[in-house]
Amino acid sequence: MNRTMDLNADLGESYGAWSMGDDEAMLDVVTSANIACGFHAGDPVTIRRTCESAARRGVAIGAHPSYPDLVGFGRREMAMSRDELEAAVLVQLGALDACCRAAGARMSYVKPHGALYHRVAHDPEHASALVGAMRAYDEGLALLVAGGVVADLARATGLRVFTEAFADRAYGQDGLLVPRSQPGSVITDPELIASRVVLLARDQTVIAVDGTRVRVAADSICVHGDTPGTVELARVARAALESAGIEVRALA
Amino acid sequence: MNRTMDLNADLGESYGAWSMGDDEAMLDVVTSANIACGFHAGDPVTIRRTCESAARRGVAIGAHPSYPDLVGFGRREMAMSRDELEAAVLVQLGALDACCRAAGARMSYVKPHGALYHRVAHDPEHASALVGAMRAYDEGLALLVAGGVVADLARATGLRVFTEAFADRAYGQDGLLVPRSQPGSVITDPELIASRVVLLARDQTVIAVDGTRVRVAADSICVHGDTPGTVELARVARAALESAGIEVRALA
Amino acid sequence: MNRTMDLNADLGESYGAWSMGDDEAMLDVVTSANIACGFHAGDPVTIRRTCESAARRGVAIGAHPSYPDLVGFGRREMAMSRDELEAAVLVQLGALDACCRAAGARMSYVKPHGALYHRVAHDPEHASALVGAMRAYDEGLALLVAGGVVADLARATGLRVFTEAFADRAYGQDGLLVPRSQPGSVITDPELIASRVVLLARDQTVIAVDGTRVRVAADSICVHGDTPGTVELARVARAALESAGIEVRALA
Amino acid sequence: MNRTMDLNADLGESYGAWSMGDDEAMLDVVTSANIACGFHAGDPVTIRRTCESAARRGVAIGAHPSYPDLVGFGRREMAMSRDELEAAVLVQLGALDACCRAAGARMSYVKPHGALYHRVAHDPEHASALVGAMRAYDEGLALLVAGGVVADLARATGLRVFTEAFADRAYGQDGLLVPRSQPGSVITDPELIASRVVLLARDQTVIAVDGTRVRVAADSICVHGDTPGTVELARVARAALESAGIEVRALA
Repeated sequence: MNRTMDLNADLGESYGAWSMGDDEAMLDVVTSANIACGFHAGDPVTIRRTCESAARRGVAIGAHPSYPDLVGFGRREMAMSRDELEAAVLVQLGALDACCRAAGARMSYVKPHGALYHRVAHDPEHASALVGAMRAYDEGLALLVAGGVVADLARATGLRVFTEAFADRAYGQDGLLVPRSQPGSVITDPELIASRVVLLARDQTVIAVDGTRVRVAADSICVHGDTPGTVELARVARAALESAGIEVRALA
Repeated sequence: MNRTMDLNADLGESYGAWSMGDDEAMLDVVTSANIACGFHAGDPVTIRRTCESAARRGVAIGAHPSYPDLVGFGRREMAMSRDELEAAVLVQLGALDACCRAAGARMSYVKPHGALYHRVAHDPEHASALVGAMRAYDEGLALLVAGGVVADLARATGLRVFTEAFADRAYGQDGLLVPRSQPGSVITDPELIASRVVLLARDQTVIAVDGTRVRVAADSICVHGDTPGTVELARVARAALESAGIEVRALA
Repeated sequence: MNRTMDLNADLGESYGAWSMGDDEAMLDVVTSANIACGFHAGDPVTIRRTCESAARRGVAIGAHPSYPDLVGFGRREMAMSRDELEAAVLVQLGALDACCRAAGARMSYVKPHGALYHRVAHDPEHASALVGAMRAYDEGLALLVAGGVVADLARATGLRVFTEAFADRAYGQDGLLVPRSQPGSVITDPELIASRVVLLARDQTVIAVDGTRVRVAADSICVHGDTPGTVELARVARAALESAGIEVRALA
Repeated sequence: MNRTMDLNADLGESYGAWSMGDDEAMLDVVTSANIACGFHAGDPVTIRRTCESAARRGVAIGAHPSYPDLVGFGRREMAMSRDELEAAVLVQLGALDACCRAAGARMSYVKPHGALYHRVAHDPEHASALVGAMRAYDEGLALLVAGGVVADLARATGLRVFTEAFADRAYGQDGLLVPRSQPGSVITDPELIASRVVLLARDQTVIAVDGTRVRVAADSICVHGDTPGTVELARVARAALESAGIEVRALA
């Protein structure tokens, strides 16, 4: 049984005149901030301010690198070569870390974004590029993902790997997320979310859509950051964990 | 009298399918490489390769940050706020440094590019943004410029400042460059360049267009990197310095 | 006395995952839509949908070209040459017109955006570039601005010029807008806005901040489109005009 | 037997400070110019100048739209939705046509670029997006491709389709290009190119790598435009066609 749990959210995803999410409110709830690095979102001022806000609260900071696709918000697969992707991730890590350093903080982990997140779970080449960039930059960086090829590869090369589950998403009997296109894939009932995050933290278990209990090992729970309603759900998740005696704190 | 002189060139300015300059050849001649950081030139693969090539040869690496203007190659002034510019420079320093770290090298100095280079020489706000970003990132970074407001400000805040002169440009009696729009502003005669760089290194002096001798303090001589002919001029400059007993080496 | 008045708003300013304003609601109120062309805002899908929405309602469509500055939302001056700016405006006109054609509509006018709007009011070179691009594309296009150098130049070259005033901005005794930095520069009181738009339409007059009556010739009144509150103010303005017997309709 | 043949090349692929190819020289040889539209290459000034140069010589102008991928030069597949791609192509057609109009010319055809070119040959959704954008813009536009799904779809919707073959590429027995990764895939011998283009024009035939004669129907022959050597090969191809009594002229 876990006595601690991390809460992470995607932040710093505003861009110039366009804002996304309520980062300040979310930073009061989560313990780890996945901060955009400019390739899918995050202009330099936004990145820097988000790092400063996270640092001020002692929230852990992770890089949230993406394919270079601002207009597609990093949600579209791109046929990048391994070298192109490794270099693209490398400069994103550096850009974010610069803002961490300026804020007196440090970048402690990497969580890939969007299409890159999904692809590195099954594509060895792109997984290798991500892991390669992390190791080239700092072998002390941890990787935060749900699992898959990239997790195995990162572990094999000596990187620490933390796994995450999703507070507001339904799981199938196979332990995988129910695709968003299916009804019931997204959970919005606060009471249900409360009970699920506690079950995840205490028993590493989710109730799948067919009612069976499925084991989902998670060091962190992801709460999405892009709607005001989600801030409230994040608060619900945190309160539920704390009420159950689980300490909410950043991964070491 | 100087016994050493640095030679610097702008490198890493290819972008994707477009190449610019012969970086490999130039890296065999210069002792300091000002490497583009992606805002005016330099895709991630180019930046990384240029850092690796410089590191392999022991050439010192400096960041060459710019206004965010790819299509204008950083040559157009932009009305950025101080905060926007400071954050924009900060992420550029981080991006370049990431590639230096991956190459086992370190970023030791910063030379602003294009319109930013010219503006920080006289605009206190943009100068302050550049210096602020450097200090926020690493107080050990040196600044490389011709002089002006930014040099004074950097020195006042405790940063090291190195000054540069231009091997292939004519100077006026006031010690300033003759604008490119004027005839005779660019020098292409190898013998003349050879004699000028030696005079610069030995006596900190240039012969101005009116024939007078003008003092120009320079720790480094800039040789441009964007034409094959310039590689040859850089070789001429280096050979002339070495023949005159001046050691060509990177700034400490 | 005017019997008709146009209402215009800046629309199509979402970008990818980021939305801005409530374009559908605003298109139910205004008679002319200034639609972003991709350089400061407006991805292709957004531009096309906004053209379709405007066309469906019979709202007139104008191009809203900008300096190329997505992260700065076109609000920062850029030192573009005349040729660069003319070509940049030209391709923006084409991009927008393509979406108009696909929607069975036509692009009837051009209103410059942001920093370009302000600059062409006093800079003959940038004004000439804007007018040159319009004439090169279609001499039947009208220009919509508050006045200034660009209006004079456009008239002199045979283009139609329509002038606009602002429903929610205070004016000085000189007939110019009070800068946003000054207190009282933005008007949010619905009743005041209602009376001002009627006075503008009926008497081409505004009450300046010092209480004097100032003549402001306006063929169109601009209502901003980037906040929900502004949609309500636009409705107030329209209702006030209609109650006063002034027909709200697009410029010919 | 053909008495005429078109020669086409990809042009306008410089970007800002970076130049690619010798467009002026190539425009003296070809009869159709596929001009970049800004998404993989071609800044506004370059696009406009290339249209003007083509118009001055009476060279036919076609749009050369791409996936939005400047750093990848449009050579990388992207997972765009049908709507995203159709709108992206639509604005590219408009941008190019604006420059044609300003040059007193007209855009008469469309040839997709790079990864888009290859994908529409087999992907019905992306083919449909391309054809949809063309029809939405101007049903009089012709499509220029080697064949495939997009050619069938375009014909089925009533668009004219012209097919092209490659002067400097080897073909397999199946009538398809030998992949660039294989030895002998690119032909550089001027005499061989001369004989092949004549055979193509006269007999719609190529000699495949295994020596068999393969029928390749081609209304146009593509000569690449990105190296000085290719200009010479284009001249060789043109001279060979003319010597053989085949008129080199643009497609109607």
